[in-house]
Amino acid sequence: MRRIHVIGIGAGDPDQLTLQAVKALRDTEVFFLLDKGEVKADLTRLRRDMLDAHVPEGTYRVVEARDPERDRSAGGAAYSPAVGDWRSARADVYERLIAEELGEDGTGAFLVWGDPALYDSTLAVLEEVLRRGAVAFAYDVVPGISSVSALVARHRTGLNRVGRPVQITTGRRLAEGFPEGVDDVVVMLDAHQAFRRYAGQDGEGAEDLDIYWGAYIGTPDEILVSGPLAEAAPRIERLRAEARERKGWIMDTYLLRRRTPEQ
Amino acid sequence: MRRIHVIGIGAGDPDQLTLQAVKALRDTEVFFLLDKGEVKADLTRLRRDMLDAHVPEGTYRVVEARDPERDRSAGGAAYSPAVGDWRSARADVYERLIAEELGEDGTGAFLVWGDPALYDSTLAVLEEVLRRGAVAFAYDVVPGISSVSALVARHRTGLNRVGRPVQITTGRRLAEGFPEGVDDVVVMLDAHQAFRRYAGQDGEGAEDLDIYWGAYIGTPDEILVSGPLAEAAPRIERLRAEARERKGWIMDTYLLRRRTPEQ
Repeated sequence: MRRIHVIGIGAGDPDQLTLQAVKALRDTEVFFLLDKGEVKADLTRLRRDMLDAHVPEGTYRVVEARDPERDRSAGGAAYSPAVGDWRSARADVYERLIAEELGEDGTGAFLVWGDPALYDSTLAVLEEVLRRGAVAFAYDVVPGISSVSALVARHRTGLNRVGRPVQITTGRRLAEGFPEGVDDVVVMLDAHQAFRRYAGQDGEGAEDLDIYWGAYIGTPDEILVSGPLAEAAPRIERLRAEARERKGWIMDTYLLRRRTPEQ
Repeated sequence: MRRIHVIGIGAGDPDQLTLQAVKALRDTEVFFLLDKGEVKADLTRLRRDMLDAHVPEGTYRVVEARDPERDRSAGGAAYSPAVGDWRSARADVYERLIAEELGEDGTGAFLVWGDPALYDSTLAVLEEVLRRGAVAFAYDVVPGISSVSALVARHRTGLNRVGRPVQITTGRRLAEGFPEGVDDVVVMLDAHQAFRRYAGQDGEGAEDLDIYWGAYIGTPDEILVSGPLAEAAPRIERLRAEARERKGWIMDTYLLRRRTPEQ
């Protein structure tokens, strides 16, 4: 039976690998590195460096493939079907990789940035491949340090406050409104800096919010900004634009925290 | 200057330590192991085993101390002041440990189960100690695999669904009502099995919920249950009571997921 490890490899700092992840790397014959065709040569190199550092040479192969991109042009109501098509296109690629690149008793691995549980669709795609029934395999999941955990560790703050909830959501959702019932919100996948809506710059009025923002967390390019949102927002906008221009891509995330009476 | 590492050591599986955590362990002279006086000898042993496995003998000391317990009898409106008193009592203990057990250039560490960012107050207590000004130190935070990440990895599912939010909250909050605006809710610190309210057993009507539950995740005692909440709830109640009786303590967490049209 083919076996697959889905390995969370942390948010960018190679030392964020767990011992469990290192063991799973060493148990793997074929690594599938998928990229989305954006300028992410840095990210491919980082993963290859991890393999060089932890897996004896000559014991594994690397197979690179293009991960189909999502049709984001549809937008709005068509969001869900586009996700369905995209997942199906990805399942085609994953199915082919597993069937063609892995022997019948072979062990492969997908390396996932951060934690496979958070805004990553590898597990859903593998389940889709299994549902189709064309290739059988067993798989397990190795949890990783998410960019969320890495972000707040670098800012030396918690995700939640005592006895209170925290919500993790997307930039798209935040653009629609501040989530109800929570004062601590972590935002991922925000290409449009939805936090600006709450920074008092477009007439919505400055809210009583602090932001803890970070980009390229745990790497030599790391940038951290924290403070009252109204003051920090323009600085983040500028730093983000400069970094994106310089590197060609950006991975960032942030925590928005509403100031409330001290508990 | 004294230095402190706050080290997330994962949810129970010693292999969930990160390489960064191992380096921080090896950089430490004095480990402060705090326990709350419950029957948690197992947990103290697990941490001592981690030190044995990763830090050369003779390079460190372990100092055990009693962590003041929270007065939960106050309840309701008095919840917040009780938390304040408790934090202050803990700050007394931490201040004394750092001042008395650590040389002026010494390096100490607090080992935190899971991730220091999630429902852990070590960082808040250290900030309180610094505010008092009686002892100065620098500190950093090493993120860890939270029980939340470990739970969903073992269940091979994600925390969120595509493009949708997830909320992390407490049993106390869940008992007050299902959070608004989310269909995926992770519950921690639930001593009273608040999920029962949504299992259709007390007249609230069975909701369209699935549960992914786990206890002692990543340890040899691990128990996992998943399925429709109405069916799983009685089984979880029974297994939880048995395990708690057998071991004298339990650490469990769960994800509640509302069934919605497939995206």
